Amino acid sequence: MPLIFREQIEEKDLPVLRQLVTATGFFTEAEIAVAVELAEDNLHKKKASDYRFLLAEEAGTLLGYTCYGHITITQSAYDLYWIVVSPECQGRGIGKQLITATENNIRKADGTRLFAETSSQPKYVSTRQFYEKSGFAQEATVRDFYAPGDNKLIYARAL
Amino acid sequence: MPLIFREQIEEKDLPVLRQLVTATGFFTEAEIAVAVELAEDNLHKKKASDYRFLLAEEAGTLLGYTCYGHITITQSAYDLYWIVVSPECQGRGIGKQLITATENNIRKADGTRLFAETSSQPKYVSTRQFYEKSGFAQEATVRDFYAPGDNKLIYARAL
Repeated sequence: MPLIFREQIEEKDLPVLRQLVTATGFFTEAEIAVAVELAEDNLHKKKASDYRFLLAEEAGTLLGYTCYGHITITQSAYDLYWIVVSPECQGRGIGKQLITATENNIRKADGTRLFAETSSQPKYVSTRQFYEKSGFAQEATVRDFYAPGDNKLIYARAL
Repeated sequence: MPLIFREQIEEKDLPVLRQLVTATGFFTEAEIAVAVELAEDNLHKKKASDYRFLLAEEAGTLLGYTCYGHITITQSAYDLYWIVVSPECQGRGIGKQLITATENNIRKADGTRLFAETSSQPKYVSTRQFYEKSGFAQEATVRDFYAPGDNKLIYARAL
């Protein structure tokens, strides 16, 4: 079955999105709350929101999504804030398809550069590998950013 | 005359702060609007604002200020968002005193790391020199961040 992509968050998506983010087992309660807040921002402000979404569905079930946005102080740089794929569907290339479709949307909006940030902690090794497989290169390291000993890694990709 | 430092933005500070930022000749209209918005955030939310201020006054005249804040997703890292000194008072060490007093406030709040970001454009050479003289070191470069050919330079200082 093909993945269906759509952009606008609807009221009914909020609990489903929360469930998906929680199911990954990857995020803290505070992080889950932020994920939902960003979706609410998109729901309420629509096109005026700084947070764009791309939802990937199969037969009406949400399998994953990205949350991204133009970095306001830049001419044409975007941040990939979140990419989440349902744990039951990992390994099927859904993350890669989501990234590709997200990049296409950003290119259509004249974006030229996509950034993603993650932590140097061992917990995030799969995240880092995913970015590298998806065409991102590590652009910079900000030492002791998240906490002493926990660096921020900035990945970048030209679009 | 000694500089007097204070932290809480008051209603009367808003036009004075706008005038000071404008007088530097360094910021665009959009940037000046952001400077005032952050001050309004501090005025309205008081201690709950993400934006802390330190105002330096001499005989009741505002000569400069910093705007800084805890980076919410980090344990103890802070960003120096703005540092502005009146053009008539530059060269008197007011920027250095502001940085030192700001750092002391951050240390008191258990901050361990202070970041400042600026552009690689020639226009910002004095900004970069100021950070370097103030004990910051260039930590990372994010190429093509602000615009193609305009890099973001991340400066850092351990507290």
